[in-house]
Amino acid sequence: MRAAVLEEFSRPLVIREFDRPPLGPRQILVRMRAAGVCGSDIHMWHGHDPRTPLPIILGHEGVGQVVEVGKSIHPFLSVTGREINPGDRIIWERGVTCGHCYSCAIRQTPNLCPNRWVYGIHRPSSAPPHLVGCYGDHIVLEPNTIVMHLDDYKGPSDALLASTSCSGATAANAIEAAGIQPGDTVLVQGSGPLGLYLMAFARAGGASTVIVVGGSPDSLALAKRLGANLTISYRDTTPDDRADAVRNAAPHGVDTVLESSGKPESISEGISVLRTGGAYVSTGFAVPVGTLPLDPYYDIVRKNLRLQGVWTSHARHLRHALSLVCRNPEPFEGIVTHKFSLDQATDALQAMESRKAIKSAIIMGDS
Amino acid sequence: MRAAVLEEFSRPLVIREFDRPPLGPRQILVRMRAAGVCGSDIHMWHGHDPRTPLPIILGHEGVGQVVEVGKSIHPFLSVTGREINPGDRIIWERGVTCGHCYSCAIRQTPNLCPNRWVYGIHRPSSAPPHLVGCYGDHIVLEPNTIVMHLDDYKGPSDALLASTSCSGATAANAIEAAGIQPGDTVLVQGSGPLGLYLMAFARAGGASTVIVVGGSPDSLALAKRLGANLTISYRDTTPDDRADAVRNAAPHGVDTVLESSGKPESISEGISVLRTGGAYVSTGFAVPVGTLPLDPYYDIVRKNLRLQGVWTSHARHLRHALSLVCRNPEPFEGIVTHKFSLDQATDALQAMESRKAIKSAIIMGDS
Amino acid sequence: MRAAVLEEFSRPLVIREFDRPPLGPRQILVRMRAAGVCGSDIHMWHGHDPRTPLPIILGHEGVGQVVEVGKSIHPFLSVTGREINPGDRIIWERGVTCGHCYSCAIRQTPNLCPNRWVYGIHRPSSAPPHLVGCYGDHIVLEPNTIVMHLDDYKGPSDALLASTSCSGATAANAIEAAGIQPGDTVLVQGSGPLGLYLMAFARAGGASTVIVVGGSPDSLALAKRLGANLTISYRDTTPDDRADAVRNAAPHGVDTVLESSGKPESISEGISVLRTGGAYVSTGFAVPVGTLPLDPYYDIVRKNLRLQGVWTSHARHLRHALSLVCRNPEPFEGIVTHKFSLDQATDALQAMESRKAIKSAIIMGDS
Amino acid sequence: MRAAVLEEFSRPLVIREFDRPPLGPRQILVRMRAAGVCGSDIHMWHGHDPRTPLPIILGHEGVGQVVEVGKSIHPFLSVTGREINPGDRIIWERGVTCGHCYSCAIRQTPNLCPNRWVYGIHRPSSAPPHLVGCYGDHIVLEPNTIVMHLDDYKGPSDALLASTSCSGATAANAIEAAGIQPGDTVLVQGSGPLGLYLMAFARAGGASTVIVVGGSPDSLALAKRLGANLTISYRDTTPDDRADAVRNAAPHGVDTVLESSGKPESISEGISVLRTGGAYVSTGFAVPVGTLPLDPYYDIVRKNLRLQGVWTSHARHLRHALSLVCRNPEPFEGIVTHKFSLDQATDALQAMESRKAIKSAIIMGDS
Repeated sequence: MRAAVLEEFSRPLVIREFDRPPLGPRQILVRMRAAGVCGSDIHMWHGHDPRTPLPIILGHEGVGQVVEVGKSIHPFLSVTGREINPGDRIIWERGVTCGHCYSCAIRQTPNLCPNRWVYGIHRPSSAPPHLVGCYGDHIVLEPNTIVMHLDDYKGPSDALLASTSCSGATAANAIEAAGIQPGDTVLVQGSGPLGLYLMAFARAGGASTVIVVGGSPDSLALAKRLGANLTISYRDTTPDDRADAVRNAAPHGVDTVLESSGKPESISEGISVLRTGGAYVSTGFAVPVGTLPLDPYYDIVRKNLRLQGVWTSHARHLRHALSLVCRNPEPFEGIVTHKFSLDQATDALQAMESRKAIKSAIIMGDS
Repeated sequence: MRAAVLEEFSRPLVIREFDRPPLGPRQILVRMRAAGVCGSDIHMWHGHDPRTPLPIILGHEGVGQVVEVGKSIHPFLSVTGREINPGDRIIWERGVTCGHCYSCAIRQTPNLCPNRWVYGIHRPSSAPPHLVGCYGDHIVLEPNTIVMHLDDYKGPSDALLASTSCSGATAANAIEAAGIQPGDTVLVQGSGPLGLYLMAFARAGGASTVIVVGGSPDSLALAKRLGANLTISYRDTTPDDRADAVRNAAPHGVDTVLESSGKPESISEGISVLRTGGAYVSTGFAVPVGTLPLDPYYDIVRKNLRLQGVWTSHARHLRHALSLVCRNPEPFEGIVTHKFSLDQATDALQAMESRKAIKSAIIMGDS
Repeated sequence: MRAAVLEEFSRPLVIREFDRPPLGPRQILVRMRAAGVCGSDIHMWHGHDPRTPLPIILGHEGVGQVVEVGKSIHPFLSVTGREINPGDRIIWERGVTCGHCYSCAIRQTPNLCPNRWVYGIHRPSSAPPHLVGCYGDHIVLEPNTIVMHLDDYKGPSDALLASTSCSGATAANAIEAAGIQPGDTVLVQGSGPLGLYLMAFARAGGASTVIVVGGSPDSLALAKRLGANLTISYRDTTPDDRADAVRNAAPHGVDTVLESSGKPESISEGISVLRTGGAYVSTGFAVPVGTLPLDPYYDIVRKNLRLQGVWTSHARHLRHALSLVCRNPEPFEGIVTHKFSLDQATDALQAMESRKAIKSAIIMGDS
Repeated sequence: MRAAVLEEFSRPLVIREFDRPPLGPRQILVRMRAAGVCGSDIHMWHGHDPRTPLPIILGHEGVGQVVEVGKSIHPFLSVTGREINPGDRIIWERGVTCGHCYSCAIRQTPNLCPNRWVYGIHRPSSAPPHLVGCYGDHIVLEPNTIVMHLDDYKGPSDALLASTSCSGATAANAIEAAGIQPGDTVLVQGSGPLGLYLMAFARAGGASTVIVVGGSPDSLALAKRLGANLTISYRDTTPDDRADAVRNAAPHGVDTVLESSGKPESISEGISVLRTGGAYVSTGFAVPVGTLPLDPYYDIVRKNLRLQGVWTSHARHLRHALSLVCRNPEPFEGIVTHKFSLDQATDALQAMESRKAIKSAIIMGDS
């Protein structure tokens, strides 16, 4: 069994061989079909994310096919109660949570569980079962992983399905937090994978007008295909230009801003076009970026603002994302612009880093 | 180690000795301090609950003191993240749920988990670890049990704390479902432990007027002490008398009815006094009682009725109940009217069955 | 000015001439463009609705063009704050509410206002301003009517827009009450205009699987075009057939049932296929139909059922309906199957009564 | 009829005589019994609030007794549907809203209505009906004012009831926005009237631990009587002292911070002690105070923060405040520390400005 291992920060990943791991009760050995490359993989590659152990198999977005389920008197059941068996195509919640802490047991927000760990992020490949990231031909899932059968989600390609694990699910969490009503006007800041999911899900959630402020012409063109009513190039406009364009498209104010740009200045720009009583939902700050000034009278109290940070997602949001992508997969397929083999895993990272790709994926395909 | 075992339906419980069980990783051996007797224990005693395996140690409401925690590299943490250690006084969520099904993982309603099992209800004492009910001097808690430290909940007696496990927590679930606003008028049907918790929590939740229709004079007197504004004897009144009394106390209609009576006729009686747009929240039907007639035009659509059934509870509701009881424990202590030793466990059941007790408890006390 | 007046129950409407009414401050004289015929118009025609005064101009669904706004120092503003001026194409909330009662001011549920009155339902044509229903070439709107500009809702025909006033908005209210999540399975009972809006809005709200049980083949074919995944003919199946078909399409249960059939037996049929924790939302009982049996243990408490009646709608729901219809008007146009002139108003009623039409409309068209 | 008129900013109010105003249909002439002095009255006195017209009768918090209701065929009904008649003791929603705008009709947030005007804030005494503020022996209420009978709210003094109109109702709005659950830990910043209401209502709403950071020893002592578990003097501590004290009292983090201090530095101080997933609800910034730095990664996204601004309140919140104050009026009476006659209105302002008073009131008393 082979995996691309990050052994030294900022250096090419190294393909290593692993023995087939023995399975404990209800562990699942999965043959990977596709892994998504997430922006945070780039941060980890360069050692900018303090969580990163070495050596590590990166990759927290994936889909695959069950090879074997560790023996147990209790079957392993998917979220819909069907037994997981060899041959099943599956996807899984990337975060494993404890179930017994304040966030899990009392607040029903497992994404905030302090004991949460994520495949491809928290565990090194040096300890058994070793295969704990998606950049490999196999992965071992732990018994308390939440698993879904992919035959409930027909239509999308493996690569697109993989990308719902993190980008799609996080967007779904933000959309749920936003509470969009039919007829609303929504401004999305950023046109990377997260921004594209946000805008498409805002449309699916009933927004009548979705405006996207983003970067590359390709991603803005894709935003249009995913239903954006207006796209604005961040590169070719001043803040005043953008505010004018938004006010023109939303004369009585924006109901909700969904931020995925990771730029601090986006926040005041977004708040300035929000109507009184509107919501600003922020998901794009994955690493520290310093501070920004907010005016507590004009921006917050007088505006009755709701500013909501959104951190990761959990299984409910993965289901939301899968469901929404399946309704009309075709335009969503445009999100994964570049596909690589496992041996090209470093190229997959570079395609994202250089912003040539909106999103890249590693395809292992059928066995 | 000793426990009162139900070996034959409707016969006295038998005190049996058990060896101290060996503990697996993160199992907890607890010395019981008090166990509550719940109405459903009476049903199980008589074999009216089809879930009941034999032999069984009844008792799903309990508090105790930790004796030992099964060795593991991971400590056992309470919901607030503190390690569980020998000597700690604890309470626990009575239901153990899977964490991976549609109810647990997608809907965040673990009380509806199809794999949920409850101490003292689902597992026989014939299989290890044997001590899986509260009617004993010790109990063994499984690793996926949700545990709370009782030094966060100071004031109430052990018996009162135990009674929050099921009666209190189920009432808290119903109160959450009801969505009471400050100033509301609430009608509570039934004055057993569940009804008393419902009325006290409705008051704590902001209801300005709480009316209780109940049975025994003792329980109605206690309802008054817990804050009821008006009590009505079910025994001494006709349905018309009750409707008149309620309409007199709530001239523009009742906002919410909370049912705990288990009487089918309560439903139409309650709906008839609800205002348009009101809610009827039903928790009291623990066993089948046949059907009742509802009028879909007058009772449901024209009234914009919300009729909400509430089944059991989960850890969030246990915390709610504990918190509310601690605010002013004194009147709540009146709910547990009769206390017995473990050897008198059958007497404890009989006191509930004969309705001499509002609630009875078994006290093991300090070791 | 001409209107079709109901002067005697069950007799043909009579075309009567009216003088142009003098306008008080902020009253609006509107030239009608289209009026929808609602099922409740049939009930009123036959005197089955006790609210009906005689003589009356029926019609509570309409769109039109402003002729004149009664002089006032304050302009008449639409919900988005734009001034209403002659020539504007508008739609309006059919219900006028007081703003100061418990339902309006405290509960924010103006559709439940006890002082609510509706154009074409509550006021006779014998008192000024006479023109208070939509079956005429003009209508007079009162100053406290909530008005929307139709140039915010481009695409649909006048007849389709008119039908959102009641059928569409009531469906939108039910959908809001239902709280559908992406991925849910929804069963819609009934395939009249309300049922078709319910199913289309459930799809728009994220439901992955929508099953419709309905009557005429034409309406079921339209349901398919509006996105239904499965349609079941009520006429050609037994209750067991239907339950089997639903369970086959929804193996782990239906999340939400939306009732618009007006048949009492639908309720138990729907509850039987709901998952534990599901919701049954009922809107279809517009007139008394007697009672039905419910089982409080199995149907309500054990199932943690939410049974929600929905009565009418308010301006928020009209906006929701308009927004959703505008996203893809083409299939919705199929709801209005028959169009008539004002002189044929009685024919329009008969087309609905005979069920030849899914929905009929009266078209006044451009002036 | 006499009123204290602000004719020149920062100068003493002048007592002026007014003729008894003729009443239009459904206008109400009220004999004032008590008026509360709000912090914003001080801002207006000094011309710091740009809304302030001159001359003006200040005072937006009041209770009084009906003298006369302007003749109309429709009676004036209170929110519970009872007719308003001479002699009735009443309170009223201070804001009058349009009912037809996006905030009123679509979002059900009338407090954000752009057409909202408030007695004692927006209208000058130079235009009929002149008596449009509470600092007078009479006031004229407009027909679209929301009115409540005070015999539904027995117990509190006139002065205390008056203070619920703005301070109490705004606190109730913040509490509703906060969504406190039983058992939560709440930090209240500020111990003026708003802070005291916030902390008392947080306790009433189920918070188990309420910590108050405030100014004067008197107000902190009152906080204790209203149920605060811990009070911290802002004057005698450093930010680090306060953070330590809060962390000691709330080892796993504060669930909700309620800000009423008006100090920008409070925001980062509050966010730093919030648990992940907590809420910061801000109401205290009544005037511009410049900007403060927020860190979008640490403070917002990583913390999954909800930062909610709260602007004013509406009738629902007034009812909540009245209901909660009536449950145990005695400690709330301590909020109004200084009482004055109408002739001493300027002294009432000065007592607030000098912070000698927690809150002052003008008492007109029985006629």
